[in-house]
Amino acid sequence: MELRDLAELAQPSETKILLLVMDGLGGLPMEPGGKTELETASTPNLDRMLREGGGGLHDPVAPGIAPGSGPGHLGLFGYDPLRYRIGRGVLEALGVDFDLQPGDVAARGNFATMDEDGRVSDRRAGRISTEAARPLCEKLDGIQVEGARVFVRPVKEHRFLLVLRFPERLEADLEDTDPGREGVPPGDPEPRTEASKRAAGVVKAWLDAAGDALAGESPANAVLLRGFATLPHWPRFPDVTRMRAYAAAAYPMYRGVARLVGMGAAAIEEGMDALVDAYVANRDAHDFLFLHVKGTDKAGEDGDFDRKVAVIEEVDAALPRVLAADPGVVVVTGDHSTPARLARHGSQPVPFLVWGGPGRAESARHFGETECAGGVYGRIRARHLLALALARAGRLAKYGA
Amino acid sequence: MELRDLAELAQPSETKILLLVMDGLGGLPMEPGGKTELETASTPNLDRMLREGGGGLHDPVAPGIAPGSGPGHLGLFGYDPLRYRIGRGVLEALGVDFDLQPGDVAARGNFATMDEDGRVSDRRAGRISTEAARPLCEKLDGIQVEGARVFVRPVKEHRFLLVLRFPERLEADLEDTDPGREGVPPGDPEPRTEASKRAAGVVKAWLDAAGDALAGESPANAVLLRGFATLPHWPRFPDVTRMRAYAAAAYPMYRGVARLVGMGAAAIEEGMDALVDAYVANRDAHDFLFLHVKGTDKAGEDGDFDRKVAVIEEVDAALPRVLAADPGVVVVTGDHSTPARLARHGSQPVPFLVWGGPGRAESARHFGETECAGGVYGRIRARHLLALALARAGRLAKYGA
Repeated sequence: MELRDLAELAQPSETKILLLVMDGLGGLPMEPGGKTELETASTPNLDRMLREGGGGLHDPVAPGIAPGSGPGHLGLFGYDPLRYRIGRGVLEALGVDFDLQPGDVAARGNFATMDEDGRVSDRRAGRISTEAARPLCEKLDGIQVEGARVFVRPVKEHRFLLVLRFPERLEADLEDTDPGREGVPPGDPEPRTEASKRAAGVVKAWLDAAGDALAGESPANAVLLRGFATLPHWPRFPDVTRMRAYAAAAYPMYRGVARLVGMGAAAIEEGMDALVDAYVANRDAHDFLFLHVKGTDKAGEDGDFDRKVAVIEEVDAALPRVLAADPGVVVVTGDHSTPARLARHGSQPVPFLVWGGPGRAESARHFGETECAGGVYGRIRARHLLALALARAGRLAKYGA
Repeated sequence: MELRDLAELAQPSETKILLLVMDGLGGLPMEPGGKTELETASTPNLDRMLREGGGGLHDPVAPGIAPGSGPGHLGLFGYDPLRYRIGRGVLEALGVDFDLQPGDVAARGNFATMDEDGRVSDRRAGRISTEAARPLCEKLDGIQVEGARVFVRPVKEHRFLLVLRFPERLEADLEDTDPGREGVPPGDPEPRTEASKRAAGVVKAWLDAAGDALAGESPANAVLLRGFATLPHWPRFPDVTRMRAYAAAAYPMYRGVARLVGMGAAAIEEGMDALVDAYVANRDAHDFLFLHVKGTDKAGEDGDFDRKVAVIEEVDAALPRVLAADPGVVVVTGDHSTPARLARHGSQPVPFLVWGGPGRAESARHFGETECAGGVYGRIRARHLLALALARAGRLAKYGA
């Protein structure tokens, strides 16, 4: 069911919903036929919740597709990641906690080196350090152009965020100026639509001023822009679901995606204690609470099987405090797989459990990939998880008479 | 596959198809970890058919969505309920066995009470009895307006059906006149499209005449209308499937949905004997037969677990007579879940079995929710069941060369 259709069915209920995301939860065995990280972990609380509720596997986007963090979380929030796409510029802004406004045009920037003939000789300016990039960003942030306010924020090494703030929403479908290879000059931010001409003009003016400002620098004497994007104009999660929604995450990207769909979001310290504290403190004033655990993904990305197991066990150990707070319906899952064996995001489907509210008998005994494949919920797309949770919480009216 | 695509593949065959629907079949255990109604029932014939054929679970509309009877049956007939939507006025007509024609505009009516300032003081006229409403409906049925024939039929208590019959199909996308709350005057049937102006004019003329006719009545001195709808213009089931189709149901709603897609439909007495009699009598002259059992849903809506179990056992006991008539391929399922535990339509997926024709070995032993979750057909959308049955009956040609 499309998100917009869900809005017609959403109804209030006393029962709250908790979405606990262990980033990159899904895994792989290190040896053929072996156990995954989750199957290796001792998780008595998750196992009990699975048996009392029900489990299954979800494909975050579609079978075989390994998603990034943006699409992975949008799916869990009920937004079809194939339909609701986040531009790279916007993702970059979310990643540095930049509070995007409706009139903003965001792009990812690179510091680059240009030779005396105006050709790009290094697209990353020798991967200058974050520290070296900071004063350059401050310099660029001070540039003033006609028609928009300018913000430049350092991201990491040679990467920065550019935001042009216009007085109102406008189209900005522009070509990248990053040519994608070296030995050629940077491109122009050509407008791909008639309506994008205004934005293109301001970007060009800014690029000229930025070129002047960096003229004496070395090696970062030029900038390249790509992924121009505006704040998407999507149905808001609280409007669709009629739930006051709260997100707690230690990393800005996840708060950002939550804010993008209209959730309130708070920065918290890393670790389960801070996460559960945030949950307990915010539970009463909200209907939907999203808690984000980063450690599973980080361990997976590092290829550290044992540390991923340990993070999962920490999460399990924290669950009694969560359950003591009467969470209503609880969904525990990941936004994608990050198997330590791959040391990157994988395409494997992700185990989930839904606990609370009425449900059928579950034959799966332990929360893990192989057992969840035989769980009562079967295998679904991530974007259907929201409806399952809403239904179990009594928050969806009948479809049609 | 979309219904229209199926039409390209449909081919004749000697093998017939029987769709046996136990309304609201899917259930829930009353206690966590317990058995559902179907799992509790003794169903030796259904169990054997499952083992000889194959089983699975279907989502009537989408995961987490509890459908009404209309969408639930459309899915079983192969129509995606998210695409093929039945307007409320049309549903109301189906429910009272009104034979809608292509030029008809139908609406749900309420008798209401209006105060002397023209404000609605009771949207249901004190929920007047069906008996009290009948002569009022006859009075309204006698009204003549320019441009359309008028039909008014009692439904139940304060509810009635209004049909305006125009000489040809026309658009009628009109605002409800029911304001949805009390203390305000009724609204006008404002046309939402240019093409709906003609229908709006006739509805307004009828409303004026109806107001005059009810002026001296108490408490039902006004009418409110909502859910204006016209007969949908959909692909016909017999055309798509190349099957002569017959529906037997004791309740008008289910015959109505079958007629809506072009099936022939006959009213029968309640109970399994009448249903099997109708099947045996009509089997030879048709290729596709749909039998509707209401008792499972009624017991579920009443929250009566044991009666639902008993109805399922009655259906099972009647199966030998059906099988003796050489039914070809048989599908047994429900249009949605109506767990006694919820005493309403639920969102849980519905078990199904397909028997007859060639199939793979089935490991599920008993026809029930948990075992069907591991059945050979897995978990599908209801709208795909038709293709499974057609394929098993040899009624679908290869797709592409």
